[in-house]
Amino acid sequence: MLTVAEAIAAIVRETSRLSAVRVKLADALGRVLAEDAVSDLDSPPFDKALMDGYAIRAADAARPDARLRVIDEVLAGQVSRQSVGPGEAIRIMTGALVPIGADAVVPVERTRLEEAERDQTVVVVNPAGLSVGKNILKRGASTRQGTRVVPAGRTLRMQEIGALAELGRAEVAVFPAPRVAVLATGDELVPVEQTPGPGQIRNSNESMLVAQLRSMGAVAHPLGVARDDPAELRNRIGKGLAHDVLLLSGGVSAGKLDLVPAALAEAGVRQVFHKVLVKPGQPIWFGVKEPSGATRPVGAVRPCCVFGLPGNPVSSMVCCELFVRTAIRALAGIEPAEPRPMRGTLTRDHRNVGNRPTYHPAKWEWTEQGGRVEPVKWVGSADLGATVEANALAVFADADRNYTSGSIVDVLLF
Amino acid sequence: MLTVAEAIAAIVRETSRLSAVRVKLADALGRVLAEDAVSDLDSPPFDKALMDGYAIRAADAARPDARLRVIDEVLAGQVSRQSVGPGEAIRIMTGALVPIGADAVVPVERTRLEEAERDQTVVVVNPAGLSVGKNILKRGASTRQGTRVVPAGRTLRMQEIGALAELGRAEVAVFPAPRVAVLATGDELVPVEQTPGPGQIRNSNESMLVAQLRSMGAVAHPLGVARDDPAELRNRIGKGLAHDVLLLSGGVSAGKLDLVPAALAEAGVRQVFHKVLVKPGQPIWFGVKEPSGATRPVGAVRPCCVFGLPGNPVSSMVCCELFVRTAIRALAGIEPAEPRPMRGTLTRDHRNVGNRPTYHPAKWEWTEQGGRVEPVKWVGSADLGATVEANALAVFADADRNYTSGSIVDVLLF
Repeated sequence: MLTVAEAIAAIVRETSRLSAVRVKLADALGRVLAEDAVSDLDSPPFDKALMDGYAIRAADAARPDARLRVIDEVLAGQVSRQSVGPGEAIRIMTGALVPIGADAVVPVERTRLEEAERDQTVVVVNPAGLSVGKNILKRGASTRQGTRVVPAGRTLRMQEIGALAELGRAEVAVFPAPRVAVLATGDELVPVEQTPGPGQIRNSNESMLVAQLRSMGAVAHPLGVARDDPAELRNRIGKGLAHDVLLLSGGVSAGKLDLVPAALAEAGVRQVFHKVLVKPGQPIWFGVKEPSGATRPVGAVRPCCVFGLPGNPVSSMVCCELFVRTAIRALAGIEPAEPRPMRGTLTRDHRNVGNRPTYHPAKWEWTEQGGRVEPVKWVGSADLGATVEANALAVFADADRNYTSGSIVDVLLF
Repeated sequence: MLTVAEAIAAIVRETSRLSAVRVKLADALGRVLAEDAVSDLDSPPFDKALMDGYAIRAADAARPDARLRVIDEVLAGQVSRQSVGPGEAIRIMTGALVPIGADAVVPVERTRLEEAERDQTVVVVNPAGLSVGKNILKRGASTRQGTRVVPAGRTLRMQEIGALAELGRAEVAVFPAPRVAVLATGDELVPVEQTPGPGQIRNSNESMLVAQLRSMGAVAHPLGVARDDPAELRNRIGKGLAHDVLLLSGGVSAGKLDLVPAALAEAGVRQVFHKVLVKPGQPIWFGVKEPSGATRPVGAVRPCCVFGLPGNPVSSMVCCELFVRTAIRALAGIEPAEPRPMRGTLTRDHRNVGNRPTYHPAKWEWTEQGGRVEPVKWVGSADLGATVEANALAVFADADRNYTSGSIVDVLLF
């Protein structure tokens, strides 16, 4: 049976990132940039006033109560036709282009206007002293033309979106959001709004997996519930294979009606692994459907990654965090694709019962001294309620071991 | 002039959360739950098999090679009409209801089937020993009927969505996503796809603010650029006031064409504060438009929070993080609404130049020993490029002070 690390390595090996697409900048948030964004201009594109005031020659303000003749006014978006000579000033607003001849901006709060003399306005600068360059952002001070402002491979946040807008990128090349079909299986499932009869449970996995996929930046397409009927399963699987990823939940353990592996084999999905040494989630199945040949599904132009997730909700959730998230990141161009655990200190003793590495729902808290992790009470893979109190999975890597308070363990945050 | 803390307190005082709405569970991710979600059922709703195998009486497996008569088979979603007596077993699949009489499930891997004897199947259990309750999740072990599973006030993540689905909540009451209008102002702005002429700059703030708002869970409605013309500004402001929040960028400093405060006053927006002791972002303006009277905008049934953000991009970004985010959280029902800084160790000396508390773009990294923060090179409020290298704002609260490497400072992550 594969270890978690081996299974993740297999997923990375089998998954390549999607082809880049051009999208509107407004739709690029959270996506990975597919090409370097290089500045087409100096930024700012001109010497820019940082305050409202007067553009002057700093030397003119060397003595107190310097009196300067106001020869023009320039607003943001305008250009003065005048240049500032000795003894002269131009009224200027924040963001405006600093006129030729001026080498400093004196803030309006440090000036007072005097009565006009022979149709001229005079500004008095007080107190003395203003260094050259004061309150001016020099052309190119933020970014020189030709500089790489946002590198390829960067996940786009608000600041990259703003910087790309400054660079004039109304459209950008990004790796698209993976499209993921979600198919719950099993005769025991009833719709969420229905009260389960004897032996039945509500189909909570679909809602949970859709939310989990959205949190990962994927686009989730729920396909409803497939009953434990080979023909129906085959039909739904065919639809699902037209997506970048197909998640099935349930039907992969050793039970008599665990039909999923057989149905996937029939659909031409090549099994990469079945079962991983992990708790919860041991029966996880992973394979790849190549888009070639007569069975190529309509619309599929690239491989589809297929995951058969165990049906118990916490098993589904943990497998989705460990394995599906890895595939989503690889498809979306996020590097590294592998989960990146934090390390934290256990705040109480914990016994890892059983023969497998366990991903245990836990409360994670940052402190000035580092991360603290407390496993929550959890009765097993069907106990979704426990995860509501959790914001992380604590990794108890050793089977059947007592972990004492103060031990350092790996933790995956969610 | 208000301090940052005083300004944030004023925003919290002036902002109340939106009225709860009922939404489909699939649309509830990231929203705050407006009512306790109480379990309508025990979970699991019946004693449930955790493995594929045989439901038996544990006492029957006390000796090795126990031979038990297989009297029925029960799949997930089915109910056996038989009960398990001494010497009997019922084949059972993971997730199925454990039949009456059985008190343990022996995994299929620990059994072998024998030839049928007189039309009966016999299963041999090996090795000996199985405690009562083994591989059975008792009814209600995860959640008892009547238990509060998700409390009101909780921001809904994948696990709460899954738990609410288990509880049968196809719809839930949540506080809706605040609707935020974004209006950039200024004659100097040109569209992103255009090359700026002399004195002009691209309208990058709209794209950035829309991304920033989306990252906060708000719904952003860009209203385009309002030119420096009182009538046009008035008209656009009127449209903006029909939203929960109106953000204007630019036009709030002391320049001659900084028309925004006057236009807002004319539209009946009550000023709460103008200017905060903060760098960048000092000219920030905040007010509230009450929905009453003849000037009540069409569609507005509640107050609109109005922010005039300074036009320089980093000023806009920082004010949005500090002040707008507080309002968004308050409207969305997230408590506390105030920003919650982390504390971390400065990794190099830094001089805070100037007379105001500074929110400086910085790189933040978690280590096992706590957070580490490194201010990035940043030439001021127009230098958006610097924020691309940053994932946080380091707070240098004291004016004109040398902070030495190893100092502890507050940090806001983004």
